Amino acid sequence: MQNATIDLNADFGEGYGAYSFGADEALLKSITSASIACGWHAGDPRTMRESVERCLKANVVIGAHPGYPDRQGFGRRPMGLTAEEVYEAVLYQVGALQAFVRAAGGQLRHIKPHGALYHQCGSSLEHALAVARAAADLGGLTIYGQTGSKLLEAAASLGLPVIAEGFADRGYFSDGSLAGRDVPGAVLHDPDRVLQQALSIALRSEVIAIGGGMATVRADTLCLHGDGPGAAEAAGMIRTGLEAAGVSVAAPRFT
Amino acid sequence: MQNATIDLNADFGEGYGAYSFGADEALLKSITSASIACGWHAGDPRTMRESVERCLKANVVIGAHPGYPDRQGFGRRPMGLTAEEVYEAVLYQVGALQAFVRAAGGQLRHIKPHGALYHQCGSSLEHALAVARAAADLGGLTIYGQTGSKLLEAAASLGLPVIAEGFADRGYFSDGSLAGRDVPGAVLHDPDRVLQQALSIALRSEVIAIGGGMATVRADTLCLHGDGPGAAEAAGMIRTGLEAAGVSVAAPRFT
Amino acid sequence: MQNATIDLNADFGEGYGAYSFGADEALLKSITSASIACGWHAGDPRTMRESVERCLKANVVIGAHPGYPDRQGFGRRPMGLTAEEVYEAVLYQVGALQAFVRAAGGQLRHIKPHGALYHQCGSSLEHALAVARAAADLGGLTIYGQTGSKLLEAAASLGLPVIAEGFADRGYFSDGSLAGRDVPGAVLHDPDRVLQQALSIALRSEVIAIGGGMATVRADTLCLHGDGPGAAEAAGMIRTGLEAAGVSVAAPRFT
Amino acid sequence: MQNATIDLNADFGEGYGAYSFGADEALLKSITSASIACGWHAGDPRTMRESVERCLKANVVIGAHPGYPDRQGFGRRPMGLTAEEVYEAVLYQVGALQAFVRAAGGQLRHIKPHGALYHQCGSSLEHALAVARAAADLGGLTIYGQTGSKLLEAAASLGLPVIAEGFADRGYFSDGSLAGRDVPGAVLHDPDRVLQQALSIALRSEVIAIGGGMATVRADTLCLHGDGPGAAEAAGMIRTGLEAAGVSVAAPRFT
Repeated sequence: MQNATIDLNADFGEGYGAYSFGADEALLKSITSASIACGWHAGDPRTMRESVERCLKANVVIGAHPGYPDRQGFGRRPMGLTAEEVYEAVLYQVGALQAFVRAAGGQLRHIKPHGALYHQCGSSLEHALAVARAAADLGGLTIYGQTGSKLLEAAASLGLPVIAEGFADRGYFSDGSLAGRDVPGAVLHDPDRVLQQALSIALRSEVIAIGGGMATVRADTLCLHGDGPGAAEAAGMIRTGLEAAGVSVAAPRFT
Repeated sequence: MQNATIDLNADFGEGYGAYSFGADEALLKSITSASIACGWHAGDPRTMRESVERCLKANVVIGAHPGYPDRQGFGRRPMGLTAEEVYEAVLYQVGALQAFVRAAGGQLRHIKPHGALYHQCGSSLEHALAVARAAADLGGLTIYGQTGSKLLEAAASLGLPVIAEGFADRGYFSDGSLAGRDVPGAVLHDPDRVLQQALSIALRSEVIAIGGGMATVRADTLCLHGDGPGAAEAAGMIRTGLEAAGVSVAAPRFT
Repeated sequence: MQNATIDLNADFGEGYGAYSFGADEALLKSITSASIACGWHAGDPRTMRESVERCLKANVVIGAHPGYPDRQGFGRRPMGLTAEEVYEAVLYQVGALQAFVRAAGGQLRHIKPHGALYHQCGSSLEHALAVARAAADLGGLTIYGQTGSKLLEAAASLGLPVIAEGFADRGYFSDGSLAGRDVPGAVLHDPDRVLQQALSIALRSEVIAIGGGMATVRADTLCLHGDGPGAAEAAGMIRTGLEAAGVSVAAPRFT
Repeated sequence: MQNATIDLNADFGEGYGAYSFGADEALLKSITSASIACGWHAGDPRTMRESVERCLKANVVIGAHPGYPDRQGFGRRPMGLTAEEVYEAVLYQVGALQAFVRAAGGQLRHIKPHGALYHQCGSSLEHALAVARAAADLGGLTIYGQTGSKLLEAAASLGLPVIAEGFADRGYFSDGSLAGRDVPGAVLHDPDRVLQQALSIALRSEVIAIGGGMATVRADTLCLHGDGPGAAEAAGMIRTGLEAAGVSVAAPRFT
């Protein structure tokens, strides 16, 4: 059997001004790549600068986490941006972050859209292509997107490297699609079950589906969370559990 | 006598969303370099993209025009940002604009701070150095600053190319310092006098000082304006008048 | 035949900081009620204060024009606010404007939602009820809404006075519903046709429908526009034309 | 000897969207009046609504805590607003909060400016008068201001009720003026010393000055804090300590 390898990623630098958000520092021990907020839905220049420095120091791969211009709603509310507006929004935000990464001597590697923008790009090919075009215009950045989403399809169509994202703490239907948060069983709370699903994805590319049976979930990265009580500890358990089972936890190799 | 050469610059792209500002399109016929707003005091991704495209098409040199995070006050109100905050604010804004310029196949050349930030960097060496450090970290951009200001001093101390800015429509004291707007004679309204001062700066590096006598004003660029009634026409008259007098109007040669 | 009476309303105070928008001053000669922007999609405290003073001086009835928290998109982009968020957004914005109206010795009379919020409340009863609840909690304000919309239904269900709004320059289907802007014939450009439709609504509560036939459009107010070239002149023509035809142009009588 | 009475106040509702700030719920057990942020430097409609409801439930007096339009800097950075701009900013913010208080069946009692605005109004009579005028125009609200400040002077000159604020955890000079945070001894960290100063202000209107000797500090209210580790517990200790010493802790009686 081949050696399983997986990236562990987290959203990062989502504080703002006087406000902190999530346990970024603690998360750095568990993750291998981070997607840093770019000052629209969350983050600000100071937070971006500090987040870049933290990631470089911890040898964690840096990506951008652009979102909608909706700080009040943390970028989680759907907004009717056109595809052109999405292209411009991503170019603006990721360009700003790229300046911080370069100033610190690092290299920006990927883009993972945030919240409602992530969802919009998951289902709308037109909007997904807008993000991909921005990634291409920013120097050919890798795209993180949900397994089976339009975002990965769009990125691949432009020849960009893609990283498929799976979730250890979310329920999937038997066709491999993610269940909405309002579906019973959509969010896994039991740490043991979350670890089992992480292992199952990493080792066998499958999960136990909602309603029974197995669903195929091929993922290059798993998304960990730093907000909420005990989140950083849960992240640490997943990393430890994966490594104990022989899974190699490592950032994607960017070419 | 040597051939006099001068750059004509203007602030650019200062509209926002549904709002337009100034006669950008008309100005392009008169200026040789433009400083594009970066989405904080004015501008937004759409406006930045369109402004970059316009400048490239008109063969006008592109720079960045970062300002304070005060859209309500158009970046004209003093704000107590620390030097570190200014460094971060400039890196963020100019990094964002740089992404648009690169995506359009152009090259960002310079930084000219806006409004209250321009004034703060004119008198505070600490804040001026913050802007200069950002310019260095963004790849060694040229700094536009007022003749005799701390901003030019800071930029030169970091080895950055500098462009000294003079004003054809503003009064100077005999020591070469610019008069505040509340000083009688601080703003010239008569188009003929404005053109005379433009010629005097370009040809002889001097102006008639407030209160009489001559003041030395060495400038590599003159600042034109696109807002206000008749502004674009006035800009056109200055360019025509300079060229008729044998002054070569051209963007700085960036190395 | 009874004497026809109609209100002429316009959105008002939609400038922002250094930006002006529309021909507010000129419009005041034509309109009898104004809906003032409240600082979210447009407007700011200075503009609100000045707009209130202008309307009081011109004896124009004052209402509030709240919108989405999307200044970049001028409140025109759909946003996924919950009904509770809409209630809070309207209470906040209209409360702020009410303070300016009271400080100036006037009285705030109505609420007319802006842009995408107006459309959301036109079709979603839940969101319409949120606006109506805010109007009730602000002292029983009148609701301006499109003829036949959920907004008027919601307001009436809470016992609030309602004003049905019609459009002289927009096409209607034969069932009385407004045609979307992408439908051929949805926007009338010919000033004569616009005036004919204004007269037809005011005198006979009907318009020539898209595709032929007549549509019933009962309206207490017509919406005029101040932005765009010639808008204020067109507004003046409509008022003059209505009065010449014996229509009494007057603000709603608020009880 | 008469019975000493003092109000205990805290800034309140300074979270924003997804961000929480301070231990509001815990603080409610210790304070008798709260100044709620109004959506500019901190706060948003949802937070304002919930904060109003919490205070009403806990029988805590409600005031407004308006600040500069600088969310990134949490309203702590000086900004060059004119006095007219301050008047408008306060009218806007406090008007918005007033709507929430009224909708909940309560009554807004006072204004306490936040951060850099508080400092500006402490030293500039012109800006202090702008706040006082807004308080008058909002129905004659009480003004909370630092002992000896221009803000109290301005409010009194307009006939508004005033509440002098003292600090149990800050050092004073022998002339009764507050020491800036950069002065050694300006911030008291020892809980016992803080309680002693609270008692000393409440019972004897004096504190031990920096450098020795006594300073007169007449205060109607003491400012407690909810942010920082252990803040809510420290607030509880001060209230308990004051009551144990026979001091009556009660909100100001508003007439």
